[in-house]
Amino acid sequence: MMKGVRPERIVATLLIVIALLIVGLIGVFIREGALDVNQTQAQTAPITAPAVNDGAAPAAATGKTRNFTLYVRSTWIKTPDGQKFWAFGYTDDPKGPAKIPGPPIIVDQGDTVNITLNNDQDPTKTTTNPEGDGHTIHLHGLDLPPAMDGDPMTAPGGHSVLPGTKYTYHFVAQYAGTYWYHCHESAAEHIQMGMYGALIIRPKGQANVAYSGTPKFDKEYTFVLSDMDSDMHQKDYDALHTGGGVDPNWTQYKPNYFFINGKYWPDTMADPNDNVNATVGQTVLVRLINTGYVVHSIHTHGFHFLVIGSDGRKLDSPYYKDTISIGPAERYDIIMKLGMAGRFMFHDHAEQMNTNNGEYPGGMLTMISVNNPDGSNPVPMKQMMGG
Amino acid sequence: MMKGVRPERIVATLLIVIALLIVGLIGVFIREGALDVNQTQAQTAPITAPAVNDGAAPAAATGKTRNFTLYVRSTWIKTPDGQKFWAFGYTDDPKGPAKIPGPPIIVDQGDTVNITLNNDQDPTKTTTNPEGDGHTIHLHGLDLPPAMDGDPMTAPGGHSVLPGTKYTYHFVAQYAGTYWYHCHESAAEHIQMGMYGALIIRPKGQANVAYSGTPKFDKEYTFVLSDMDSDMHQKDYDALHTGGGVDPNWTQYKPNYFFINGKYWPDTMADPNDNVNATVGQTVLVRLINTGYVVHSIHTHGFHFLVIGSDGRKLDSPYYKDTISIGPAERYDIIMKLGMAGRFMFHDHAEQMNTNNGEYPGGMLTMISVNNPDGSNPVPMKQMMGG
Amino acid sequence: MMKGVRPERIVATLLIVIALLIVGLIGVFIREGALDVNQTQAQTAPITAPAVNDGAAPAAATGKTRNFTLYVRSTWIKTPDGQKFWAFGYTDDPKGPAKIPGPPIIVDQGDTVNITLNNDQDPTKTTTNPEGDGHTIHLHGLDLPPAMDGDPMTAPGGHSVLPGTKYTYHFVAQYAGTYWYHCHESAAEHIQMGMYGALIIRPKGQANVAYSGTPKFDKEYTFVLSDMDSDMHQKDYDALHTGGGVDPNWTQYKPNYFFINGKYWPDTMADPNDNVNATVGQTVLVRLINTGYVVHSIHTHGFHFLVIGSDGRKLDSPYYKDTISIGPAERYDIIMKLGMAGRFMFHDHAEQMNTNNGEYPGGMLTMISVNNPDGSNPVPMKQMMGG
Repeated sequence: MMKGVRPERIVATLLIVIALLIVGLIGVFIREGALDVNQTQAQTAPITAPAVNDGAAPAAATGKTRNFTLYVRSTWIKTPDGQKFWAFGYTDDPKGPAKIPGPPIIVDQGDTVNITLNNDQDPTKTTTNPEGDGHTIHLHGLDLPPAMDGDPMTAPGGHSVLPGTKYTYHFVAQYAGTYWYHCHESAAEHIQMGMYGALIIRPKGQANVAYSGTPKFDKEYTFVLSDMDSDMHQKDYDALHTGGGVDPNWTQYKPNYFFINGKYWPDTMADPNDNVNATVGQTVLVRLINTGYVVHSIHTHGFHFLVIGSDGRKLDSPYYKDTISIGPAERYDIIMKLGMAGRFMFHDHAEQMNTNNGEYPGGMLTMISVNNPDGSNPVPMKQMMGG
Repeated sequence: MMKGVRPERIVATLLIVIALLIVGLIGVFIREGALDVNQTQAQTAPITAPAVNDGAAPAAATGKTRNFTLYVRSTWIKTPDGQKFWAFGYTDDPKGPAKIPGPPIIVDQGDTVNITLNNDQDPTKTTTNPEGDGHTIHLHGLDLPPAMDGDPMTAPGGHSVLPGTKYTYHFVAQYAGTYWYHCHESAAEHIQMGMYGALIIRPKGQANVAYSGTPKFDKEYTFVLSDMDSDMHQKDYDALHTGGGVDPNWTQYKPNYFFINGKYWPDTMADPNDNVNATVGQTVLVRLINTGYVVHSIHTHGFHFLVIGSDGRKLDSPYYKDTISIGPAERYDIIMKLGMAGRFMFHDHAEQMNTNNGEYPGGMLTMISVNNPDGSNPVPMKQMMGG
Repeated sequence: MMKGVRPERIVATLLIVIALLIVGLIGVFIREGALDVNQTQAQTAPITAPAVNDGAAPAAATGKTRNFTLYVRSTWIKTPDGQKFWAFGYTDDPKGPAKIPGPPIIVDQGDTVNITLNNDQDPTKTTTNPEGDGHTIHLHGLDLPPAMDGDPMTAPGGHSVLPGTKYTYHFVAQYAGTYWYHCHESAAEHIQMGMYGALIIRPKGQANVAYSGTPKFDKEYTFVLSDMDSDMHQKDYDALHTGGGVDPNWTQYKPNYFFINGKYWPDTMADPNDNVNATVGQTVLVRLINTGYVVHSIHTHGFHFLVIGSDGRKLDSPYYKDTISIGPAERYDIIMKLGMAGRFMFHDHAEQMNTNNGEYPGGMLTMISVNNPDGSNPVPMKQMMGG
């Protein structure tokens, strides 16, 4: 719901929308038709990279253009005790439910990127919230002008992408690194409810490195870390659907579920994207993105890791760790050389977050499987999973 | 209230005070008259810098002397829902209420500094707490001998500056950097209630840099970050004023208000000290001081920042970030080059702290305004503020 | 209790145990007899250091062998208000109660180390939990193969060291640094209940340094930081002893006691291991280990410290701080040069954690005593302690 938006602002927003309809400018801000890249580019011409000199020159546009379209849908998050909690998030499939996290957006340095948010079915538009909140895409870590930033307050018109409208975010991918995207409308609510995803920029002309000059990797993983207060999800559902509900007070946030790529243990073992699986001797890159609201403390068994970058920038002085504290919205790029076969835990060491609503093991936990060259592993998968 | 101070200690303190009166030494510890700098210096002669070799030689006293006097007063913190919560803190105006944060103390490296705490009207001295707690000034990050340190346990007499007395803290400003000061009497209570402020030491002989050798800035800001549990403020008021109240159990601390320089959004836009306002192309320094009790995760839209120093010392290996996790009492000095015009959010990315008691947007949120050379801005202020 | 262990897993575990008995392999995994180092080595031959090149070549086994045996016992943690809370942890004395933290394990780089966990009296084996949980030793920060790692899921048989059995963890101490050990069975419960201790590896052939090339120290301290939710200890006791109890939901963890080496202030002053005591001019190393579940923010009065290493690896770019944020399971090695006499606080600056259940001063607080060469101190101990 549009918590914290003053009534006069809603009125002002409506007046602005009406004015835009009258003067015929609606095409600029609200495009109902198919994506017109040229129009988008015309609108967003003044994209200027801030003059940050970090030893990695930003890339100019190469001419390759990448187009993405995201929709907003609701879904239900099922918990091991048989409950389910309402959530909403992005998807690239207009016929499916929300994907939480949203589809990963992976581009190359130098690409010209257009991401259209088509808010055709806003899940926050309900009988108790008939206007709907609207949504945005904030490209967290890209240094973009206000029109492309996704903050509703600084966006054209001073509002988010309203229900029934579209908006295209446009940028040239300048610095290689690990970023993320999320909604910035009613952000305390909308991110918690599921509106976040990974955004990766691969360095130009260099395969299998995160940044120019960092170690080569054989395999690459992106682990989106998040946390959920299921009681607040229930309250948010009630507020938007029953009318008698009370908006959650987000300051009382106390998460009881913890996710890697939207999965809690043991479900992290089901999808090859959510656990490390490599051959002995290989080097892997893991991109850690904390999209949650609390600090997580990620520990690897079996291997120290080299921290090579953070927040989309290479570190001049990388360092080894076996446990890294990662605050909300921070990202760390870590490299591990997997010198021995076996299976090794990868988990949050705030032990209360290594559970599913208190049940250990669970939550923010997955495995590093290092196989022998013949594919065998000293730790049988079946035994490890208690099979 | 004097939580955690054992009764026998109060008795001992009283006995010591009586003894001092008898032997006529009271003038040394309790000075009722005007500040006598010579006496202070005599008392505090053995100020020795610890031999920390950090590549920036500590400055000797230049002979320039800076005198400050602080008083303790109560005040009321108003919240957007019309409530108000009791607080107390420092002020340099004996006729006004507490300033929260306290007056910034800004000196140059090499200055001889005297800060007198005149505890003439101790707000903790009430009918239910007739002795009053007393207060101190701990100069956090300055490496000072016990008599100047502000810890009541190691202070002369083993107590704080008692109601009706004065004490002068004396030091030579040795290392340029970002520090802070706060009360160390009943610290869990007194800091939360508002007894904290910024302390800045500017490098000797160098304008517009934070440390020798760090990038020149055009503008400089100090953002004191803090958090408040309004329920505990109410409980503390009750305990000190109604007698029937119960002292808050600080371990149950759960903040619901979040401040930059004592303001929550949108009030951070009212005072030019509380939001960044610069011209395109300028470089700004922001000194971040976490005086709160929880970790904050500060994110800038529009620009990465270079972390150049922490806790009053320059970093040998600075690094770029767009989000920085800052623990209680830590300080980070960050530099941003503002390469494009617009307005850009600056906020805590623990999203629950980006609210006023749960209402988004609010809390630890302000703006970076980057204006065109003619003073105009692509994002009209009125639109941004929902006007 | 074996929270989160599915019933089918318990059955599977039992079947595996029975199978092992039948095929006579039990001697490999469950050794009831005296420690047989050769057998242990045979079993654990494939210990391979991951090829982490951090500028400090791992040591080969020197032939010196160090044997340790740990038992698990319960104990009671007494609080200043006269309450006591059940806990359990390791001890090297089979006739005594648990030591919390467990006995420090201190070895030299190159040592061959055998640590036998003799689970002869498992405190979790109760009338309401008749099987008992079992326990393990996870050597946190040592990069070991699964059989030596202490994770029950990847251990031989897929289970912990069951009640009535023994197991020997074997490794060659490769990288000097600060590590710790803890139980990984039902880890959210077992670590909180007290199953953790320090593990230190001293560099080969070099006295009084933490790592090759870091500053020489005169004295060395290890401070194991931890936190406790006393209500959860009570719930855990009830669940294991009364049957009517409800297992704590660890996600609701809210600690109210905070420890350095298992002591809260003022008890940190009673044992010379728990507070710094040195002569003016000396340099001390403090190894900080956060075994707790929340971030701590450690502040030193009087002296900045140099951060020289973390998680068992030297930092290429050390930095000065006066306050360091340390996440769960992280370690930092800090060096202080004590250039002036006096007494100086050393404490958590999350002020709510500087209390005993809310009473200030308390909790994670100790002192740095810097004495004159004749042993005197400008701050009398008696005065400081309120005596």
